[in-house]
Amino acid sequence: MPQVTQMLRRAVQLNGRGLATECAGRKRTWAEVRDRCARLAGGLAGLGFQPGDRIAILALNSDRYLEYYFACAWGGFLFVPINTRLAPPEIAHWLTDSGATGLFIDEAFLPALPAFRDKTGLRHIIFCGDAATPDGMQGHDALVQAGPAIDDAGARGDTVAGLFYTGGTTGRSKGVMLSHGNLLANAVNGMTMLSFNTNSVILHAAPMFHIADATVTLFGTIAGATHVFMARFDPAAYLAMVPRHRITGGLCVPTMINMLVNHPDVATTDLSSFREMVFGASPMPEAVLRRALQAFPNTRFTQAYGQTEAAPVMTLMPPEMLALEGPKVGRLRAAGIATPACDVQILDAEDREVPRGTVGEICGRGPNIMLGYWNQPELSAHTLRNGWLHTGDGGWMDEDGLVYVVDRVKDMIISGGENVYSAEVEEALYAHPAVAECAVIGVPDATWGERVHAIVRLKAGMAATEQALMDHCRTLIAGFKCPRSLALREEPLPLSGAGKILKSELRAPFWVGVTRQVN
Amino acid sequence: MPQVTQMLRRAVQLNGRGLATECAGRKRTWAEVRDRCARLAGGLAGLGFQPGDRIAILALNSDRYLEYYFACAWGGFLFVPINTRLAPPEIAHWLTDSGATGLFIDEAFLPALPAFRDKTGLRHIIFCGDAATPDGMQGHDALVQAGPAIDDAGARGDTVAGLFYTGGTTGRSKGVMLSHGNLLANAVNGMTMLSFNTNSVILHAAPMFHIADATVTLFGTIAGATHVFMARFDPAAYLAMVPRHRITGGLCVPTMINMLVNHPDVATTDLSSFREMVFGASPMPEAVLRRALQAFPNTRFTQAYGQTEAAPVMTLMPPEMLALEGPKVGRLRAAGIATPACDVQILDAEDREVPRGTVGEICGRGPNIMLGYWNQPELSAHTLRNGWLHTGDGGWMDEDGLVYVVDRVKDMIISGGENVYSAEVEEALYAHPAVAECAVIGVPDATWGERVHAIVRLKAGMAATEQALMDHCRTLIAGFKCPRSLALREEPLPLSGAGKILKSELRAPFWVGVTRQVN
Repeated sequence: MPQVTQMLRRAVQLNGRGLATECAGRKRTWAEVRDRCARLAGGLAGLGFQPGDRIAILALNSDRYLEYYFACAWGGFLFVPINTRLAPPEIAHWLTDSGATGLFIDEAFLPALPAFRDKTGLRHIIFCGDAATPDGMQGHDALVQAGPAIDDAGARGDTVAGLFYTGGTTGRSKGVMLSHGNLLANAVNGMTMLSFNTNSVILHAAPMFHIADATVTLFGTIAGATHVFMARFDPAAYLAMVPRHRITGGLCVPTMINMLVNHPDVATTDLSSFREMVFGASPMPEAVLRRALQAFPNTRFTQAYGQTEAAPVMTLMPPEMLALEGPKVGRLRAAGIATPACDVQILDAEDREVPRGTVGEICGRGPNIMLGYWNQPELSAHTLRNGWLHTGDGGWMDEDGLVYVVDRVKDMIISGGENVYSAEVEEALYAHPAVAECAVIGVPDATWGERVHAIVRLKAGMAATEQALMDHCRTLIAGFKCPRSLALREEPLPLSGAGKILKSELRAPFWVGVTRQVN
Repeated sequence: MPQVTQMLRRAVQLNGRGLATECAGRKRTWAEVRDRCARLAGGLAGLGFQPGDRIAILALNSDRYLEYYFACAWGGFLFVPINTRLAPPEIAHWLTDSGATGLFIDEAFLPALPAFRDKTGLRHIIFCGDAATPDGMQGHDALVQAGPAIDDAGARGDTVAGLFYTGGTTGRSKGVMLSHGNLLANAVNGMTMLSFNTNSVILHAAPMFHIADATVTLFGTIAGATHVFMARFDPAAYLAMVPRHRITGGLCVPTMINMLVNHPDVATTDLSSFREMVFGASPMPEAVLRRALQAFPNTRFTQAYGQTEAAPVMTLMPPEMLALEGPKVGRLRAAGIATPACDVQILDAEDREVPRGTVGEICGRGPNIMLGYWNQPELSAHTLRNGWLHTGDGGWMDEDGLVYVVDRVKDMIISGGENVYSAEVEEALYAHPAVAECAVIGVPDATWGERVHAIVRLKAGMAATEQALMDHCRTLIAGFKCPRSLALREEPLPLSGAGKILKSELRAPFWVGVTRQVN
């Protein structure tokens, strides 16, 4: 029966004396990390935590974040990673909804603590920062030192390993219950198409609370690789760390890759050690991917598609299928093929498979699919109806099994009765050399129902008029898909904690007092 | 819930119009093979077979053998592949033990049919050869044509998919129950370290009844690759087929590889298309591996270790860990590291993990481990005690997690109280340039209990005396391990259906009237 801790044991088996984690000058071997996790689990048990208890974390990236994941799995406690961009009332909601009685926190979030602590059932706060442990809290390292190391509690199989909340920044938040079996299945399944091993050095730059980076935490561990951490993503710091640590791989969301390739240091940085970049969590504009392939000369870029509910990987793009030119160049926009263990199909509203090339809902089934949403049996049953996870994403499949994500159902624009996929319009805008970043949304329109509206930030020192950008789109996509209005802005677009552009926030001012219809 | 047929559906999803099978001039696409399997399942259902019924097969390799596997899985029938080297009483035993009511057979085995048919409960014989269907039998292709295609019966998860018998040629035969979940887990797990894809062309030369080649049947299908078949292994024919079909990969047992690299045609054959050779099922002498690496210039040789009870893969040798020279050259003898989904440990008699470097029993647990032995609950419970599959193989693990198989417990020789691993002595003999093949066994000895005895066949045109060969061993291994007697023979060593040297047969004449103690 699969266990999350099995990944940690495998790292020790393959690379016990090898470097497991490097963070802020601290270096530890896999044997040390395994021992620390067993002791941290013992320390938590000593505080009274029982298997099944929920222990949350609100922290920036660090080696202690990795230890938190594995110590919880070791002790049978459920991990509940919290989005670092939440406001205190949202944090309080996640903590109370999950029933968390413990919280790991670092100095970045101490100021917010008084605003939510009393609204929760927290009994113990564990400080996992670098400063001195505040009064009234336990220290992460002190718990490790106190221990004692306990035996693995044996949580496994269909037992919930953790709750990953989605929708925290917009809409109703839901705690996705991922089991030990889900997370191990995802790790093994992902390894069929990625190549992390004991020689890999992985940089954690995307936030560790998010399932995308959590997955890389697990991939890197089951492979016995080395993990290097940066507290939060910053393009200049990222570019400095790659040559310093001879980083070989990691995960970025497209927004981060866009910032890296547009950063002035990219041209002078030695990125030759970098072999494998996994990207996902939101669509990658083709123009950005092409720039990235130039900037990272030795790097295989592997697109992953999935969602938290799938633990999360559903498709991966095999490098041998990618074509940068020629008749199959359209594959640059594909999200990949179904991973071997996950059955992915495009279904219609009655859950029948649609013909290849037809847009439907991307659905999946397999050992990686979540148990359900925490305390939401009706929503769980609806999302998992007929044995399929319904992603809410529109997509189609070509004759080679490649899946093309057209849009989140909620981001699709219905204008004059035509479906417009915002990602496709954004692709066209990103193909313009002056565009640094953009978002395309539907806004209310008396004539068309919704109107295609674009928000664009230009690159520093570049110029383009609104009309020129709209005209540019007409050269690439059909007229009904082109923006009918376009706004230039100077400030960066708002991002979620995971680095996705927050379209809900961009849409909000247009929809005051108007209800938007979403499928 | 995992299904064997999921692999077939994935092949159609990725490569529906691509070549699935090529055999004796017949070529079929994956869409055609899927359709044929659904129709063959329908034809079998029309004969009265019900889900859960056992349908055996006794045939040489062909495209129809692959269809048999997937049609059985599709209809929910259990496949029971039969060793092609069995004598009629042994065949009768397997058929009655499994309770098979159907049998696929080809012309190679028709002559033996009268000798066992009446001793079994067979109700239908399906002829899967190329000749006209004999009277009283169903034709494989006729069943496909009659159909109709039926819906997948939905057998999945922990439901038994098939019975793979082991020990048929020696000792008591046991039907290993492998579930749909076991076989899919093995396929996904194996793909983490192999690289079959839709561009692969796989040659089936090892017998398809054996779990080793059955695994490649499943690996190649979940990857959407092309399968090419030769009825039975022959080194000259094999070498001719590689360039003709641009074969990219396949599985051979070491005996087969030894025959290939010793064949005169190997020097003049274009083997450049061959990328990935998986080998396993018995130890690979290092000298043979070195010759093979020279003979196949573009080929990655990946050693797989496991057993039928593990569906079957437990360890694989990652190519980046292999070293042909230098301080890590000893890794050439390693069987690889634990595959990600299978927890492999070396345990002592009390199932405690032994220190690295200490010989113990190789044990495994994970989603690939068998449900048990068919109708043998006590043996199942013993073999799977404490949650571990006990392989009966002796081995040790190094600091990098590499597993070294020292010997089958039953092949280990205890001489004067010292354990001698026959594989190690054979390694030494194979290092002699005149040795074509050899086997080392324990024979009764009044002084030592067992004596190390070697049986050697020399290469054509080469000469070496018994004494010279024994002296050669002394230069490589400790005196107590060296053969104390050695017999040269001219005829090839006896092989099992899977191509393993039959040591039991070589031992038998020495042990008449004497009982051999085996751990």
